[in-house]
Amino acid sequence: MGMTMTQKILAAHAGLDEVKAGQLIMANLDLVLGNDVTSPVAINEFNKAGFTDVFDKNKVTMVMDHFAPNKDIKSATQCKTCRDFASKYDIKNYFDVGDMGIEHALLPEKGLVAPGDCVIGADSHTCTYGALGAFSTGIGSTDMCAGMAKGKTWFKVPAAIKFNIVGKLPKYSAAKDVILHIIGMIGVDGALYKSMEFSGEGLKNLSMEDRLCMANMAIEAGAKNGIFAVDDVTLDYIKDKVDREYKIYKADDDAEYEAEYTIDLSQIKPTVAFPHLPENARTFDDIPEVKIDQVVIGSCTNGRIEDLRCAAEILDGKKVAKNVRCIVIPATQKVYMQAMKEGLLEIFINAGCAVSTPTCGPCLGGHMGILAKGERAVATTNRNFVGRMGHPESEVYLASPYVAAASAVTGKISQPSEVM
Amino acid sequence: MGMTMTQKILAAHAGLDEVKAGQLIMANLDLVLGNDVTSPVAINEFNKAGFTDVFDKNKVTMVMDHFAPNKDIKSATQCKTCRDFASKYDIKNYFDVGDMGIEHALLPEKGLVAPGDCVIGADSHTCTYGALGAFSTGIGSTDMCAGMAKGKTWFKVPAAIKFNIVGKLPKYSAAKDVILHIIGMIGVDGALYKSMEFSGEGLKNLSMEDRLCMANMAIEAGAKNGIFAVDDVTLDYIKDKVDREYKIYKADDDAEYEAEYTIDLSQIKPTVAFPHLPENARTFDDIPEVKIDQVVIGSCTNGRIEDLRCAAEILDGKKVAKNVRCIVIPATQKVYMQAMKEGLLEIFINAGCAVSTPTCGPCLGGHMGILAKGERAVATTNRNFVGRMGHPESEVYLASPYVAAASAVTGKISQPSEVM
Repeated sequence: MGMTMTQKILAAHAGLDEVKAGQLIMANLDLVLGNDVTSPVAINEFNKAGFTDVFDKNKVTMVMDHFAPNKDIKSATQCKTCRDFASKYDIKNYFDVGDMGIEHALLPEKGLVAPGDCVIGADSHTCTYGALGAFSTGIGSTDMCAGMAKGKTWFKVPAAIKFNIVGKLPKYSAAKDVILHIIGMIGVDGALYKSMEFSGEGLKNLSMEDRLCMANMAIEAGAKNGIFAVDDVTLDYIKDKVDREYKIYKADDDAEYEAEYTIDLSQIKPTVAFPHLPENARTFDDIPEVKIDQVVIGSCTNGRIEDLRCAAEILDGKKVAKNVRCIVIPATQKVYMQAMKEGLLEIFINAGCAVSTPTCGPCLGGHMGILAKGERAVATTNRNFVGRMGHPESEVYLASPYVAAASAVTGKISQPSEVM
Repeated sequence: MGMTMTQKILAAHAGLDEVKAGQLIMANLDLVLGNDVTSPVAINEFNKAGFTDVFDKNKVTMVMDHFAPNKDIKSATQCKTCRDFASKYDIKNYFDVGDMGIEHALLPEKGLVAPGDCVIGADSHTCTYGALGAFSTGIGSTDMCAGMAKGKTWFKVPAAIKFNIVGKLPKYSAAKDVILHIIGMIGVDGALYKSMEFSGEGLKNLSMEDRLCMANMAIEAGAKNGIFAVDDVTLDYIKDKVDREYKIYKADDDAEYEAEYTIDLSQIKPTVAFPHLPENARTFDDIPEVKIDQVVIGSCTNGRIEDLRCAAEILDGKKVAKNVRCIVIPATQKVYMQAMKEGLLEIFINAGCAVSTPTCGPCLGGHMGILAKGERAVATTNRNFVGRMGHPESEVYLASPYVAAASAVTGKISQPSEVM
């Protein structure tokens, strides 16, 4: 029996010819990531363990994105811990206020992940880099500590589910709708500790931004990782970013998949995940009138330039509804600059949006748009758990940038066709 | 004996021909202001007192600026209280995320203050509007409550100090340097409960932004208010903003001043107020090497378009020093848009600054750039009290946008000549 794409990457990084689902392996790491929330814990463990250096100063990266620019003394102290560590060990890819972005948008943009890489990050959405054909997964801070010191970590080799992508998305349907549809179909534990492998003739119709959005939310189906077959879209994306060697791994024709789904993109409609789970996916034939108080357009899921273009297309010449706050958060400084040059920020400001400096911010209830009791938000973020964006009695509805922008205009959950 | 400019405004608003310093009067109000920190307290009192309406829905204004976009559930709840109150009483000038700015930059820009007005605001820097030739002062939340309900409040008529402005500022000296110089000269209680009245032939060389910056910091010398004589600069500023009648009040020739100072602008040098009081003003012949961790360019003192132009002039083509965060916060959405159109935001981003949506943010230790223990910031803000921007053992150095930007480039407190 052959191996899946994920299994082939893991085998190579473990120095083995073959691995099987369930097997425990020790794999070499190409990149170890932490943010301002998880790194301080890892650094504390690193110091307690008496480690004297990181395994490779080019392969450890820290991004100050969750509570930066700092919201309080605690978060300032956490960032200072990271900054001091990065200075002490000469960490090359340390990203702080002013030269930063949301980690999972920033690292691909900076060319820090290449196809075939094995990446761990102390953040659950580290699965994002599967969009590039890398194996990438979220781990805890103690694993981050060991990874930083040793450049290795252990994995249990995951089984896999195959998603055969066909067709092309209709106008105003987005990658976010695809992944919400999938999670709605298989549930938040539908891919528990498995790989979600995306391939098929429809892949060519999904941009890198689309793939990053979909791989990002693999964890919301419980997956160990999400991964896309490498194609011309991948190679085109990395060609001016990655300046080192990498290897492309392809699933064997006889690879074993526990399940296989065909996803016809042409059938995907605007989709909203209702509180309080991403699996509560509904299309607009099943959505009542839901008044909203806030819209958030951003995050590691949907804060990239294509996402902002979609939102701007809807908001151009329109106004955010009275008593609705619409907060737009470009995911990185580069996205911010690009959006400015393309006139998107001007459209947002004219519409009455607040444009934030890059930060995870409200997605995790951090800052920059926290909800009060009883308030409802439509957000392009990835989780709508109880209290995720603020008060335990607030609600988050997950949607695409198109739906989020349309909802900002009407003040209720709306699909683009209601305003275009 | 004649009256000062302030006394004439107060007499007119109390329906009296004459008032004297020390006299208690009841004055009619043209505008009552609150923000997201002070308004909820006032609203609570308003409800407890059983008031059923505001005195004039056009003359009460609330601006969500201190902790907005909301940093936590508490601040979200406070804003919701204001939003609900504004909706209930149809408050016309309620400003929230997306259509907002820092109150003291926003109200003049929106034409809500005119020469000769009598304004109170539940924020100490309400004295800012004296730049327009209005009497304007900060009050507490209970006074705001009564002001909202009755349109009146009591004052003890202040005595006054006269500042005779002559000459013109040298290149790279700024209005901020003037007011820091004055506070350094007279001390933080140098104008306690007095009016600081600015007039003289040099006034024509001070832009409205300059005057707003200087009047803003009158409270840092303990003043009841700061006020500028109305001239062509004033009239030019308000002509496309204020669309109602107003009256210009001029100090009598024989008005009594407790003290009189002549300020020769041509002698003003770049000035920095050292921790932990605005009166600790030093010029660069008396400043040792002070390494810094953060620079904040913004606030109701220095977040206007001219301020951003000054900072951009310094930062153009340069880079923020390693391990220094430079946070630029346009004071209003209009300033943000203007700065974007002029290419200033592009300069900031290229230099490695974070550009925030309008907010008071770090100035008062709110959010968007809080300092950790031992960290030092150069800020264009107005207060450097112990713990003002974060940890009690952090330090804030007050300076002009020129000095702040130059310091961002070098990573230590620097004057513009060090980098230009």
